[in-house]
Amino acid sequence: MASGKFITFEGGEGSGKSTQAKLLADRLRAKGIDVVLTREPGGSPFAEQIRELLLSGNLAPHPPLAEALLFYAARADHMATTIRPALAAGRWVICDRFSDSTRVYQGGAGGLGADVLAELERLVVGAGQPHLTLILDLAPALGLARAEARRTGPGDVACAEADPYERRDLAFHERLRAGYLAIAGAEPARCAVVDAAEAADAIAARVWSLVESRLLAGRP
Amino acid sequence: MASGKFITFEGGEGSGKSTQAKLLADRLRAKGIDVVLTREPGGSPFAEQIRELLLSGNLAPHPPLAEALLFYAARADHMATTIRPALAAGRWVICDRFSDSTRVYQGGAGGLGADVLAELERLVVGAGQPHLTLILDLAPALGLARAEARRTGPGDVACAEADPYERRDLAFHERLRAGYLAIAGAEPARCAVVDAAEAADAIAARVWSLVESRLLAGRP
Repeated sequence: MASGKFITFEGGEGSGKSTQAKLLADRLRAKGIDVVLTREPGGSPFAEQIRELLLSGNLAPHPPLAEALLFYAARADHMATTIRPALAAGRWVICDRFSDSTRVYQGGAGGLGADVLAELERLVVGAGQPHLTLILDLAPALGLARAEARRTGPGDVACAEADPYERRDLAFHERLRAGYLAIAGAEPARCAVVDAAEAADAIAARVWSLVESRLLAGRP
Repeated sequence: MASGKFITFEGGEGSGKSTQAKLLADRLRAKGIDVVLTREPGGSPFAEQIRELLLSGNLAPHPPLAEALLFYAARADHMATTIRPALAAGRWVICDRFSDSTRVYQGGAGGLGADVLAELERLVVGAGQPHLTLILDLAPALGLARAEARRTGPGDVACAEADPYERRDLAFHERLRAGYLAIAGAEPARCAVVDAAEAADAIAARVWSLVESRLLAGRP
Protein backbone atom coordinates (compact mmCIF):
# COMPACT_ATOMS: atom_id res chain seq x y z
CA MET A 1 0.00 0.00 0.00
CA ALA A 2 1.26 3.49 -0.87
CA SER A 3 2.38 5.65 2.03
CA GLY A 4 0.18 8.66 2.85
CA LYS A 5 1.07 12.29 2.24
CA PHE A 6 2.35 14.67 4.89
CA ILE A 7 1.20 18.32 4.66
CA THR A 8 2.20 21.08 7.08
CA PHE A 9 0.81 24.59 7.57
CA GLU A 10 3.19 27.32 8.68
CA GLY A 11 2.95 31.04 9.30
CA GLY A 12 2.92 33.74 11.95
CA GLU A 13 0.29 34.43 14.62
CA GLY A 14 -3.23 34.96 13.27
CA SER A 15 -2.40 33.78 9.75
CA GLY A 16 -5.25 31.25 9.76
CA LYS A 17 -3.27 27.98 9.91
CA SER A 18 -5.74 26.08 12.12
CA THR A 19 -8.75 27.15 10.06
CA GLN A 20 -7.08 26.22 6.76
CA ALA A 21 -5.79 22.90 8.11
CA LYS A 22 -9.34 21.95 9.11
CA LEU A 23 -10.86 23.08 5.79
CA LEU A 24 -8.29 21.06 3.86
CA ALA A 25 -8.89 17.97 6.03
CA ASP A 26 -12.65 18.24 5.37
CA ARG A 27 -12.14 18.56 1.63
CA LEU A 28 -9.77 15.59 1.45
CA ARG A 29 -12.14 13.47 3.57
CA ALA A 30 -14.96 14.36 1.16
CA LYS A 31 -12.80 12.79 -1.56
CA GLY A 32 -12.56 9.58 0.52
CA ILE A 33 -9.02 10.18 1.79
CA ASP A 34 -8.35 9.11 5.39
CA VAL A 35 -6.86 12.17 7.15
CA VAL A 36 -5.20 12.70 10.54
CA LEU A 37 -5.42 16.35 11.58
CA THR A 38 -2.79 17.20 14.18
CA ARG A 39 -0.75 20.11 15.55
CA GLU A 40 2.56 21.14 17.08
CA PRO A 41 3.76 21.47 19.70
CA GLY A 42 1.62 18.52 20.72
CA GLY A 43 -0.19 15.84 18.75
CA SER A 44 0.53 12.99 21.19
CA PRO A 45 -0.14 12.76 24.95
CA PHE A 46 3.52 13.27 25.97
CA ALA A 47 4.01 16.06 23.42
CA GLU A 48 0.86 17.81 24.67
CA GLN A 49 2.37 17.82 28.18
CA ILE A 50 5.51 19.43 26.75
CA ARG A 51 3.28 21.96 24.92
CA GLU A 52 1.78 23.00 28.23
CA LEU A 53 5.25 23.58 29.65
CA LEU A 54 6.30 25.63 26.60
CA LEU A 55 3.23 27.82 26.27
CA SER A 56 2.31 28.31 29.92
CA GLY A 57 4.65 31.28 29.97
CA ASN A 58 4.93 31.47 33.77
CA LEU A 59 8.73 31.64 33.68
CA ALA A 60 11.34 34.03 32.39
CA PRO A 61 12.34 33.54 28.72
CA HIS A 62 14.36 30.35 28.24
CA PRO A 63 17.62 30.00 26.31
CA PRO A 64 16.64 29.36 22.65
CA LEU A 65 18.69 26.12 22.67
CA ALA A 66 16.67 24.73 25.61
CA GLU A 67 13.44 25.72 23.88
CA ALA A 68 14.46 24.19 20.56
CA LEU A 69 15.39 20.91 22.31
CA LEU A 70 12.03 20.88 24.07
CA PHE A 71 10.17 21.44 20.79
CA TYR A 72 12.22 18.63 19.24
CA ALA A 73 11.50 16.30 22.17
CA ALA A 74 7.79 16.88 21.56
CA ARG A 75 8.32 16.42 17.81
CA ALA A 76 10.21 13.14 18.27
CA ASP A 77 7.32 11.72 20.31
CA HIS A 78 4.71 13.13 17.92
CA MET A 79 6.46 11.57 14.91
CA ALA A 80 6.96 8.17 16.59
CA THR A 81 3.47 8.00 18.10
CA THR A 82 1.22 9.75 15.59
CA ILE A 83 2.75 10.84 12.27
CA ARG A 84 4.90 7.89 11.13
CA PRO A 85 2.31 5.19 11.99
CA ALA A 86 -0.43 7.14 10.17
CA LEU A 87 1.65 7.65 7.02
CA ALA A 88 2.76 4.01 7.06
CA ALA A 89 -0.90 2.97 7.17
CA GLY A 90 -1.60 5.05 4.04
CA ARG A 91 -3.35 7.88 5.88
CA TRP A 92 -2.66 11.53 5.10
CA VAL A 93 -1.37 13.75 7.89
CA ILE A 94 -2.10 17.49 8.09
CA CYS A 95 -0.11 19.25 10.78
CA ASP A 96 -0.61 22.79 12.12
CA ARG A 97 3.06 23.88 12.51
CA PHE A 98 6.16 21.65 12.23
CA SER A 99 9.96 22.03 11.96
CA ASP A 100 9.86 25.30 10.03
CA SER A 101 8.29 26.93 13.12
CA THR A 102 11.36 25.95 15.16
CA ARG A 103 13.65 27.20 12.40
CA VAL A 104 12.07 30.65 12.44
CA TYR A 105 10.93 31.10 16.08
CA GLN A 106 14.10 29.79 17.79
CA GLY A 107 16.42 30.26 14.79
CA GLY A 108 15.91 33.27 12.51
CA ALA A 109 13.92 35.29 15.07
CA GLY A 110 15.24 33.70 18.28
CA GLY A 111 18.97 33.82 17.59
CA LEU A 112 19.86 30.12 17.62
CA GLY A 113 22.28 29.11 14.84
CA ALA A 114 20.86 27.57 11.67
CA ASP A 115 23.50 24.81 11.91
CA VAL A 116 22.18 23.67 15.32
CA LEU A 117 18.61 23.57 14.05
CA ALA A 118 19.62 21.73 10.89
CA GLU A 119 21.37 19.14 13.04
CA LEU A 120 18.33 18.63 15.30
CA GLU A 121 16.10 18.38 12.23
CA ARG A 122 18.42 15.76 10.76
CA LEU A 123 18.37 13.73 14.01
CA VAL A 124 14.60 13.86 14.55
CA VAL A 125 12.89 14.41 11.19
CA GLY A 126 15.49 12.88 8.89
CA ALA A 127 13.81 11.65 5.71
CA GLY A 128 10.37 12.36 7.22
CA GLN A 129 10.06 15.87 5.74
CA PRO A 130 6.59 17.04 4.67
CA HIS A 131 5.59 16.43 1.06
CA LEU A 132 4.04 19.90 1.00
CA THR A 133 4.41 22.91 3.31
CA LEU A 134 1.89 25.71 2.94
CA ILE A 135 3.26 28.99 4.27
CA LEU A 136 0.43 31.43 5.07
CA ASP A 137 2.00 34.83 4.57
CA LEU A 138 0.58 37.91 6.27
CA ALA A 139 1.79 41.31 7.51
CA PRO A 140 2.51 40.79 11.23
CA ALA A 141 0.47 43.80 12.36
CA LEU A 142 -2.62 42.33 10.69
CA GLY A 143 -1.96 38.81 12.02
CA LEU A 144 -1.48 40.00 15.59
CA ALA A 145 -4.70 42.04 15.39
CA ARG A 146 -6.54 38.91 14.18
CA ALA A 147 -5.03 36.79 16.98
CA GLU A 148 -6.08 39.41 19.49
CA ALA A 149 -9.64 39.55 18.09
CA ARG A 150 -9.85 35.73 18.20
CA ARG A 151 -8.79 35.73 21.86
CA THR A 152 -11.17 38.40 23.02
CA GLY A 153 -14.09 37.00 21.02
CA PRO A 154 -17.21 38.86 19.82
CA GLY A 155 -18.03 40.21 23.27
CA ASP A 156 -15.81 42.18 25.56
CA VAL A 157 -14.60 39.29 27.70
CA ALA A 158 -11.11 37.98 27.06
CA CYS A 159 -11.33 34.19 26.65
CA ALA A 160 -7.61 33.36 26.61
CA GLU A 161 -4.25 34.88 27.44
CA ALA A 162 -1.73 35.74 24.74
CA ASP A 163 0.99 33.06 24.70
CA PRO A 164 4.66 34.06 25.22
CA TYR A 165 5.25 34.34 21.45
CA GLU A 166 2.26 36.55 20.73
CA ARG A 167 3.56 38.93 23.40
CA ARG A 168 6.90 39.49 21.59
CA ASP A 169 7.40 42.83 19.81
CA LEU A 170 6.60 43.59 16.19
CA ALA A 171 10.27 43.34 15.11
CA PHE A 172 10.29 39.70 16.31
CA HIS A 173 7.22 38.96 14.19
CA GLU A 174 8.78 40.69 11.18
CA ARG A 175 11.79 38.39 11.54
CA LEU A 176 9.43 35.40 11.66
CA ARG A 177 7.85 36.45 8.39
CA ALA A 178 11.23 36.99 6.71
CA GLY A 179 12.36 33.58 8.01
CA TYR A 180 9.39 31.81 6.47
CA LEU A 181 9.84 33.54 3.12
CA ALA A 182 13.53 32.57 3.12
CA ILE A 183 12.61 28.91 3.68
CA ALA A 184 10.08 29.05 0.84
CA GLY A 185 12.73 30.52 -1.43
CA ALA A 186 15.30 27.89 -0.50
CA GLU A 187 12.97 24.86 -0.77
CA PRO A 188 10.47 25.59 -3.54
CA ALA A 189 9.82 21.89 -4.25
CA ARG A 190 8.44 21.39 -0.73
CA CYS A 191 7.02 24.82 0.08
CA ALA A 192 4.40 27.16 -1.34
CA VAL A 193 3.59 30.67 -0.12
CA VAL A 194 -0.11 31.54 0.13
CA ASP A 195 -1.33 35.13 0.57
CA ALA A 196 -3.18 35.01 3.91
CA ALA A 197 -4.57 38.55 3.71
CA GLU A 198 -7.49 37.29 1.61
CA ALA A 199 -10.80 35.87 2.92
CA ALA A 200 -10.74 32.33 4.33
CA ASP A 201 -12.57 30.80 1.35
CA ALA A 202 -10.21 32.40 -1.17
CA ILE A 203 -7.22 31.07 0.81
CA ALA A 204 -8.83 27.62 0.95
CA ALA A 205 -9.31 27.65 -2.84
CA ARG A 206 -5.65 28.51 -3.36
CA VAL A 207 -4.57 25.79 -0.88
CA TRP A 208 -6.75 23.25 -2.66
CA SER A 209 -5.33 24.09 -6.09
CA LEU A 210 -1.81 23.58 -4.69
CA VAL A 211 -2.74 20.23 -3.14
CA GLU A 212 -4.40 19.14 -6.38
CA SER A 213 -1.49 20.06 -8.61
CA ARG A 214 1.29 18.86 -6.31
CA LEU A 215 -0.15 15.80 -4.56
CA LEU A 216 -3.32 14.63 -6.25
CA ALA A 217 -2.40 14.92 -9.95
CA GLY A 218 -2.33 11.49 -11.57
CA ARG A 219 -4.27 9.76 -8.75
CA PRO A 220 -7.25 7.68 -9.85
CA MET B 1 40.16 35.09 38.30
CA ALA B 2 40.52 31.36 37.69
CA SER B 3 37.40 29.50 36.60
CA GLY B 4 35.91 27.06 39.13
CA LYS B 5 35.98 23.28 38.86
CA PHE B 6 33.07 21.16 37.68
CA ILE B 7 32.61 17.76 39.37
CA THR B 8 29.85 15.26 38.54
CA PHE B 9 28.68 12.15 40.37
CA GLU B 10 27.33 9.26 38.33
CA GLY B 11 26.08 5.75 39.05
CA GLY B 12 23.02 3.53 39.19
CA GLU B 13 20.06 3.68 41.60
CA GLY B 14 21.02 3.54 45.28
CA SER B 15 24.73 4.05 44.67
CA GLY B 16 24.90 7.00 47.08
CA LYS B 17 25.47 9.87 44.63
CA SER B 18 23.40 12.46 46.53
CA THR B 19 25.00 11.59 49.87
CA GLN B 20 28.54 11.75 48.47
CA ALA B 21 27.88 14.96 46.55
CA LYS B 22 26.74 16.62 49.77
CA LEU B 23 29.69 15.28 51.81
CA LEU B 24 32.14 16.54 49.19
CA ALA B 25 30.47 19.96 49.08
CA ASP B 26 30.76 20.21 52.89
CA ARG B 27 34.42 19.27 52.84
CA LEU B 28 35.30 21.74 50.07
CA ARG B 29 33.38 24.51 51.87
CA ALA B 30 35.35 23.73 55.04
CA LYS B 31 38.46 24.52 52.99
CA GLY B 32 36.98 27.90 52.02
CA ILE B 33 35.92 26.95 48.51
CA ASP B 34 32.62 28.41 47.29
CA VAL B 35 30.52 25.44 46.10
CA VAL B 36 27.24 25.17 44.19
CA LEU B 37 25.58 21.81 44.82
CA THR B 38 23.11 20.93 42.09
CA ARG B 39 21.44 17.98 40.36
CA GLU B 40 20.05 16.67 37.08
CA PRO B 41 17.53 16.51 35.71
CA GLY B 42 16.83 19.90 37.25
CA GLY B 43 19.05 22.51 38.83
CA SER B 44 17.19 25.55 37.44
CA PRO B 45 13.48 26.45 37.64
CA PHE B 46 12.70 25.51 34.03
CA ALA B 47 14.77 22.32 34.24
CA GLU B 48 13.00 21.32 37.46
CA GLN B 49 9.67 21.58 35.61
CA ILE B 50 11.07 19.28 32.92
CA ARG B 51 12.26 16.91 35.68
CA GLU B 52 8.71 16.63 36.96
CA LEU B 53 7.49 15.70 33.48
CA LEU B 54 10.24 13.08 33.09
CA LEU B 55 9.96 11.43 36.47
CA SER B 56 6.21 11.65 37.07
CA GLY B 57 5.85 8.38 35.18
CA ASN B 58 2.13 8.70 34.54
CA LEU B 59 2.48 7.90 30.85
CA ALA B 60 3.61 4.93 28.77
CA PRO B 61 7.38 4.70 28.13
CA HIS B 62 8.52 7.39 25.71
CA PRO B 63 10.75 6.92 22.65
CA PRO B 64 14.38 7.15 23.90
CA LEU B 65 15.07 9.97 21.40
CA ALA B 66 12.23 12.10 22.86
CA GLU B 67 13.51 11.38 26.37
CA ALA B 68 17.10 12.24 25.49
CA LEU B 69 16.01 15.53 23.91
CA LEU B 70 14.01 16.37 27.01
CA PHE B 71 16.99 15.66 29.27
CA TYR B 72 19.14 17.83 27.02
CA ALA B 73 16.57 20.66 27.05
CA ALA B 74 16.79 20.62 30.85
CA ARG B 75 20.59 20.41 30.66
CA ALA B 76 20.84 23.37 28.26
CA ASP B 77 18.84 25.52 30.67
CA HIS B 78 20.73 24.23 33.71
CA MET B 79 24.08 25.02 32.08
CA ALA B 80 23.04 28.48 30.90
CA THR B 81 21.30 29.46 34.13
CA THR B 82 23.30 27.75 36.88
CA ILE B 83 26.50 25.94 35.90
CA ARG B 84 28.28 28.28 33.48
CA PRO B 85 27.67 31.46 35.52
CA ALA B 86 28.91 29.75 38.72
CA LEU B 87 32.10 28.43 37.07
CA ALA B 88 32.74 31.79 35.43
CA ALA B 89 32.51 33.43 38.87
CA GLY B 90 35.19 31.04 40.19
CA ARG B 91 32.78 28.86 42.16
CA TRP B 92 32.98 25.07 42.11
CA VAL B 93 29.97 23.11 40.86
CA ILE B 94 29.10 19.63 42.12
CA CYS B 95 26.32 17.99 40.14
CA ASP B 96 24.39 14.82 41.00
CA ARG B 97 24.12 13.21 37.50
CA PHE B 98 25.03 14.83 34.17
CA SER B 99 25.56 13.80 30.52
CA ASP B 100 26.88 10.34 31.32
CA SER B 101 23.46 9.47 32.76
CA THR B 102 21.85 10.23 29.39
CA ARG B 103 24.58 8.22 27.64
CA VAL B 104 23.83 5.10 29.69
CA TYR B 105 20.08 5.40 30.48
CA GLN B 106 18.86 6.42 26.99
CA GLY B 107 21.92 5.12 25.09
CA GLY B 108 23.62 1.93 26.28
CA ALA B 109 20.62 0.67 28.29
CA GLY B 110 17.84 2.50 26.39
CA GLY B 111 18.79 1.65 22.82
CA LEU B 112 19.47 5.12 21.40
CA GLY B 113 22.57 5.29 19.17
CA ALA B 114 25.82 6.56 20.68
CA ASP B 115 26.27 8.84 17.64
CA VAL B 116 23.00 10.68 18.39
CA LEU B 117 23.97 11.17 22.04
CA ALA B 118 27.47 12.33 21.11
CA GLU B 119 25.92 14.89 18.76
CA LEU B 120 23.53 16.22 21.44
CA GLU B 121 26.41 16.39 23.92
CA ARG B 122 28.47 18.34 21.39
CA LEU B 123 25.61 20.81 20.80
CA VAL B 124 24.74 21.38 24.47
CA VAL B 125 27.81 20.61 26.60
CA GLY B 126 30.55 21.34 24.07
CA ALA B 127 33.71 22.33 25.87
CA GLY B 128 31.84 22.43 29.20
CA GLN B 129 32.69 18.84 30.18
CA PRO B 130 33.26 18.12 33.89
CA HIS B 131 36.82 18.35 35.16
CA LEU B 132 36.18 15.20 37.21
CA THR B 133 33.44 12.57 37.06
CA LEU B 134 33.14 10.17 39.99
CA ILE B 135 31.39 6.96 38.98
CA LEU B 136 29.97 5.17 42.04
CA ASP B 137 30.03 1.51 41.06
CA LEU B 138 27.72 -1.00 42.73
CA ALA B 139 26.05 -4.34 41.92
CA PRO B 140 22.53 -3.38 40.73
CA ALA B 141 20.75 -5.82 43.08
CA LEU B 142 22.38 -4.11 46.07
CA GLY B 143 21.72 -0.60 44.74
CA LEU B 144 18.04 -1.30 44.07
CA ALA B 145 17.63 -2.79 47.57
CA ARG B 146 19.18 0.39 49.03
CA ALA B 147 16.92 2.63 46.94
CA GLU B 148 13.93 0.61 48.09
CA ALA B 149 14.97 0.84 51.76
CA ARG B 150 15.47 4.61 51.38
CA ARG B 151 11.97 4.98 49.96
CA THR B 152 10.19 2.92 52.58
CA GLY B 153 12.15 4.41 55.46
CA PRO B 154 12.79 2.88 58.89
CA GLY B 155 9.14 2.11 59.53
CA ASP B 156 6.76 0.16 57.35
CA VAL B 157 5.16 3.12 55.58
CA ALA B 158 6.28 3.82 52.03
CA CYS B 159 7.24 7.51 51.75
CA ALA B 160 7.73 7.75 48.00
CA GLU B 161 6.99 5.90 44.78
CA ALA B 162 9.72 4.24 42.73
CA ASP B 163 10.42 6.41 39.65
CA PRO B 164 10.04 4.94 36.13
CA TYR B 165 13.75 3.99 35.99
CA GLU B 166 13.86 2.22 39.34
CA ARG B 167 10.96 0.08 38.12
CA ARG B 168 12.91 -1.29 35.11
CA ASP B 169 14.14 -4.88 35.30
CA LEU B 170 17.52 -6.04 36.59
CA ALA B 171 18.93 -6.57 33.08
CA PHE B 172 18.36 -2.85 32.37
CA HIS B 173 20.30 -1.94 35.51
CA GLU B 174 23.12 -4.35 34.56
CA ARG B 175 23.38 -2.52 31.21
CA LEU B 176 23.56 0.80 33.07
CA ARG B 177 26.49 -0.46 35.14
CA ALA B 178 28.31 -1.79 32.09
CA GLY B 179 27.69 1.54 30.31
CA TYR B 180 29.25 3.52 33.15
CA LEU B 181 32.31 1.25 33.31
CA ALA B 182 32.76 1.59 29.55
CA ILE B 183 32.75 5.40 29.85
CA ALA B 184 35.32 5.26 32.66
CA GLY B 185 37.52 3.04 30.51
CA ALA B 186 37.25 5.32 27.50
CA GLU B 187 37.82 8.62 29.36
CA PRO B 188 40.22 7.92 32.23
CA ALA B 189 41.47 11.51 32.38
CA ARG B 190 37.99 12.77 33.28
CA CYS B 191 36.50 9.76 35.11
CA ALA B 192 37.33 7.69 38.19
CA VAL B 193 35.47 4.61 39.38
CA VAL B 194 34.75 4.40 43.12
CA ASP B 195 33.63 1.18 44.82
CA ALA B 196 30.21 2.09 46.25
CA ALA B 197 29.68 -1.16 48.18
CA GLU B 198 31.70 0.23 51.11
CA ALA B 199 30.37 2.35 53.98
CA ALA B 200 29.58 6.01 53.24
CA ASP B 201 32.62 7.35 55.13
CA ALA B 202 35.01 5.01 53.32
CA ILE B 203 33.56 6.11 49.97
CA ALA B 204 33.86 9.76 51.03
CA ALA B 205 37.53 9.25 51.91
CA ARG B 206 38.22 7.73 48.50
CA VAL B 207 36.33 10.56 46.77
CA TRP B 208 38.33 13.14 48.73
CA SER B 209 41.65 11.59 47.81
CA LEU B 210 40.67 11.71 44.12
CA VAL B 211 39.63 15.36 44.36
CA GLU B 212 42.87 16.21 46.20
CA SER B 213 45.13 14.49 43.71
CA ARG B 214 43.30 15.57 40.55
CA LEU B 215 41.96 19.05 41.32
CA LEU B 216 43.55 20.46 44.47
CA ALA B 217 47.20 19.47 43.99
CA GLY B 218 49.34 22.57 43.57
CA ARG B 219 46.72 24.97 44.91
CA PRO B 220 47.85 27.38 47.62
